[in-house]
Amino acid sequence: MDETQNPPTTEMQSTTITSETLPFENFSRRVLIKTILNRPDGGLGLAGKRVTVGGWVKTGREQGKGSFAFLELNDGSCPSNLQVLVDASVWNLGDLVPTGTCVFVEGELKKPPVGTKQNVELRVIRVLEVGPVDPVKYPLPKTKLTLEFLRDVVHLRPRTNTISAVARIRNALAYATHTFFQKNGFLYVQTPIVTTSDCEGAGEMFQVTTLLSDAEKVEKEIKKNPPPTKAEIEAAKLLISEKGGVVANLKSAKASKEDLNASLSELKNAKENLSRLEERSKLKPGIPQKDGKIDYTQDFFARQAFLTVSGQLQVETFACALSSVYTFGPTFRAEHSHTSRHLAEFWMVEPEIAFANLEDDMNCAEAYVKFLCQWLLDNCLDDMEFMVKNFDKTAIDRLKLVSSSPFERISYTEAVELLQNVTEKKFENKVEWGIDLASEHERYLTEVIFKKPVIVYNYPKQIKAFYMRLNDDSKTVAAMDVLVPKVGELIGGSQREERYDVIVKRILEMELPLEPYDWYLDLRRYGTVKHCGFGLGFERMVLFATGIDNIRDVIPFPRYPGRADL
Amino acid sequence: MDETQNPPTTEMQSTTITSETLPFENFSRRVLIKTILNRPDGGLGLAGKRVTVGGWVKTGREQGKGSFAFLELNDGSCPSNLQVLVDASVWNLGDLVPTGTCVFVEGELKKPPVGTKQNVELRVIRVLEVGPVDPVKYPLPKTKLTLEFLRDVVHLRPRTNTISAVARIRNALAYATHTFFQKNGFLYVQTPIVTTSDCEGAGEMFQVTTLLSDAEKVEKEIKKNPPPTKAEIEAAKLLISEKGGVVANLKSAKASKEDLNASLSELKNAKENLSRLEERSKLKPGIPQKDGKIDYTQDFFARQAFLTVSGQLQVETFACALSSVYTFGPTFRAEHSHTSRHLAEFWMVEPEIAFANLEDDMNCAEAYVKFLCQWLLDNCLDDMEFMVKNFDKTAIDRLKLVSSSPFERISYTEAVELLQNVTEKKFENKVEWGIDLASEHERYLTEVIFKKPVIVYNYPKQIKAFYMRLNDDSKTVAAMDVLVPKVGELIGGSQREERYDVIVKRILEMELPLEPYDWYLDLRRYGTVKHCGFGLGFERMVLFATGIDNIRDVIPFPRYPGRADL
Repeated sequence: MDETQNPPTTEMQSTTITSETLPFENFSRRVLIKTILNRPDGGLGLAGKRVTVGGWVKTGREQGKGSFAFLELNDGSCPSNLQVLVDASVWNLGDLVPTGTCVFVEGELKKPPVGTKQNVELRVIRVLEVGPVDPVKYPLPKTKLTLEFLRDVVHLRPRTNTISAVARIRNALAYATHTFFQKNGFLYVQTPIVTTSDCEGAGEMFQVTTLLSDAEKVEKEIKKNPPPTKAEIEAAKLLISEKGGVVANLKSAKASKEDLNASLSELKNAKENLSRLEERSKLKPGIPQKDGKIDYTQDFFARQAFLTVSGQLQVETFACALSSVYTFGPTFRAEHSHTSRHLAEFWMVEPEIAFANLEDDMNCAEAYVKFLCQWLLDNCLDDMEFMVKNFDKTAIDRLKLVSSSPFERISYTEAVELLQNVTEKKFENKVEWGIDLASEHERYLTEVIFKKPVIVYNYPKQIKAFYMRLNDDSKTVAAMDVLVPKVGELIGGSQREERYDVIVKRILEMELPLEPYDWYLDLRRYGTVKHCGFGLGFERMVLFATGIDNIRDVIPFPRYPGRADL
Repeated sequence: MDETQNPPTTEMQSTTITSETLPFENFSRRVLIKTILNRPDGGLGLAGKRVTVGGWVKTGREQGKGSFAFLELNDGSCPSNLQVLVDASVWNLGDLVPTGTCVFVEGELKKPPVGTKQNVELRVIRVLEVGPVDPVKYPLPKTKLTLEFLRDVVHLRPRTNTISAVARIRNALAYATHTFFQKNGFLYVQTPIVTTSDCEGAGEMFQVTTLLSDAEKVEKEIKKNPPPTKAEIEAAKLLISEKGGVVANLKSAKASKEDLNASLSELKNAKENLSRLEERSKLKPGIPQKDGKIDYTQDFFARQAFLTVSGQLQVETFACALSSVYTFGPTFRAEHSHTSRHLAEFWMVEPEIAFANLEDDMNCAEAYVKFLCQWLLDNCLDDMEFMVKNFDKTAIDRLKLVSSSPFERISYTEAVELLQNVTEKKFENKVEWGIDLASEHERYLTEVIFKKPVIVYNYPKQIKAFYMRLNDDSKTVAAMDVLVPKVGELIGGSQREERYDVIVKRILEMELPLEPYDWYLDLRRYGTVKHCGFGLGFERMVLFATGIDNIRDVIPFPRYPGRADL
């Protein structure tokens, strides 16, 4: 046992630790349930060992006329529960059986009687701690709860099978993301959350400000302690001239140093009093205004500031210096979307590669998505099996398909032709060259026509952002979208326009102002480089992997119009 | 060569790829310079190989009366430059030598003449691309630039040796963080950025709102299209009653269906017109008010929302379900601090462990910091050597010290006694039981008294947050701070109060309202568990590692009062 990590103490653990006792894990005072159950033998080989475990009771039932109880214990380390057997002589069973009860126990692992499902069960020797639950009041009764219901108990929903499985899958995808990019020599750059740039000049942005709270403070202050009236200020001024007069008189009368100093001190006080009053008279209720508009020079950052909608433009500054970089952080849209695919706060993965073109971009996107899928198959199969059983029969098959088959790559022009020739289905939206593909078209391409991921590239310039590289045909830009079954667009990317003259022309064409992009243009003015990148909506990837339908259920704390619990 | 990753294309690369050619890396069209130079032989073993490399010129000089040029080329993959030799017959040398020029070249690696510093240099065969620089205008001249100056060119500063070395060290620390916690079975939970809770009821918070931009939109709309006057609305009402009269008359006169329908249609139009006018008459300039206060029910989240100051309270909901979790994300303080230690936006690492006490917390914090230090020694030695040479002679020694020596652990009471007995130094701040230690005291403990990291634990309850577990002495709480040389406090943590009655009493004692913490109390009402956690200020760790003095230089895009560039 590692002494530094897990020294025995007397407070929570007092039995002798013998060679028969499994060591603590995780800098905590217990063995993880997955360490017991996720062995190839399902834990059977540990029979006879002493362990300390802790977790929350999923189901508890008294048996043998109340002489013992079975507890299904889960500690969040894996989807499986450990079966725990407690004798009535050890603890009051009624305290242990309610769903949600936290128990922290020491016991011995045993092979259960023949014919039972478990490979191993725990016979409790000592109950160390209990966190009780009043079943009448517990907000998560044992009955099957809908995901929609659980959104109203966001602080307790991690205790449910589904939300905890999603949390483990999400964790795996996040670490797989870092591992993929680090393995490939990319540097993680944390782009700013508060920004004074707008990535596309389009998205609705949240504003970040201290003006409202400052105004509230001033109003409170004024209420408590009203600013001086004009008369009070005049009186203070009068006092100064009086005191000044006294000083002048004393000086001309060559009065004693003492008398003069006393008067000078009074004059000083009077002056200080006036400057205090004048300072306070500047206190004005409300938000500071200038020329009929809000005066943002008074705001915290001395200008209007927003929550970022993408780290791309900022991460490009690092790509144009450190070559291969990525950002992985929260992004925000203040859109009043109430769909199952949109959040006001969501996470994005955005790599950016120098000395690379659109083909490299597609190669990177494909390799990354394949890596994520394979990672889940290698590291989260138990949770994926739970998702297959409870939400989406095809979830594992989809991961296998994506990780093993090359993505189809077609140009936007080819995609439009394919969709225009579709006769089996009537689309709600028009398919026409020059209009963006709708979600129904994207899903038809990947789910019906190709039955695998599809990368569509070279889009008409008028439907894409100014920073995407203009192709030689002058009609399309080097953009690409990765479409996958179940969610449609998973990734959007492009080669960036590295030519100074061309990008300036594109900004002006799109009627955007040049000045806010001056720093961005500097990257093209000085040592410009061909580069490309893409963005993956992280929650979309979790939806794709888990088969969950609503994006609000795959992020720990969903934010959407009207809701930001906790 | 991996075909999927790096297929040859005609656009940027047209020479035949032979077995003598090193494959591309990073989903880009070049070999990383670190792949060449960071070999044990410094690249010598690659002599004779063809490679394509890209990077930015650090220093260029024409030699041999302009017959060739030496370029020191850096691509951000490592602190070292590759020496590149270009013949005047290959490219116009004047275009290549300015500092900051981007060059993308193909050539052959050669052993340079005896007596030169390099182990290997590149003789260029073809120049593939050049991103030129006008040296007169380039904002980063070759002269030594101060870090302070570089803060004004935040978009180009990653091209400097210092900022790029810091970026690589920061990247390594971030990945080491994930690796440490994942290896130890912790799940990464992304806590929310926008929050409606305040972690400690203390910190100054930024507000997140759409009210100001909504008000601006309304004002623009009103200007363009003023709301209807009362007279206009009265006229519209009159029209309805007129049209209604006509319909009534036609009905009683049993007029033709056609006539009646025409009148009914006119009546409908008149009604619609009125409702449009009434809707528009509700448009009011300014921020919506109710009962003399801002009406936040009209804001995006239907209530006041802020940027998070810590993910701790939220991540506790996951610890009380999934046992061992951590969050790693941006946090915010709207404090007008202009110090070298504070940012308005900074990153925090916050693990939270169930079934664990303060000792486990200290063990985890110590193991984590040691792991980070060892990781840098193992993975970033070249960058650390750069920091030692240019910023802090002791930086590597400090990492070695911390990774190898057990941290001292003393109680707050012992720390106060030690400091009160110090005679060699006069502190500016008072040392007295019950007052928080000042930064000078913390640094004295770690730098002078113990000369290694120190963990101070069991602080007086009145100087710590309500959620920290009350010790049996009823005077102290189970809190701990990790102090390290150079930065002082690096980590703050505690065992959390898991006892419902005790925490309620503490909240009331500190005159905080109970209602906002109701969800937090639920964690103690239902299945409560002993748990602990801590927070590490990620930028402080980067300061500690690099020896850089100002926190604004160790985050890609610093935000502080008055500044949020890009």
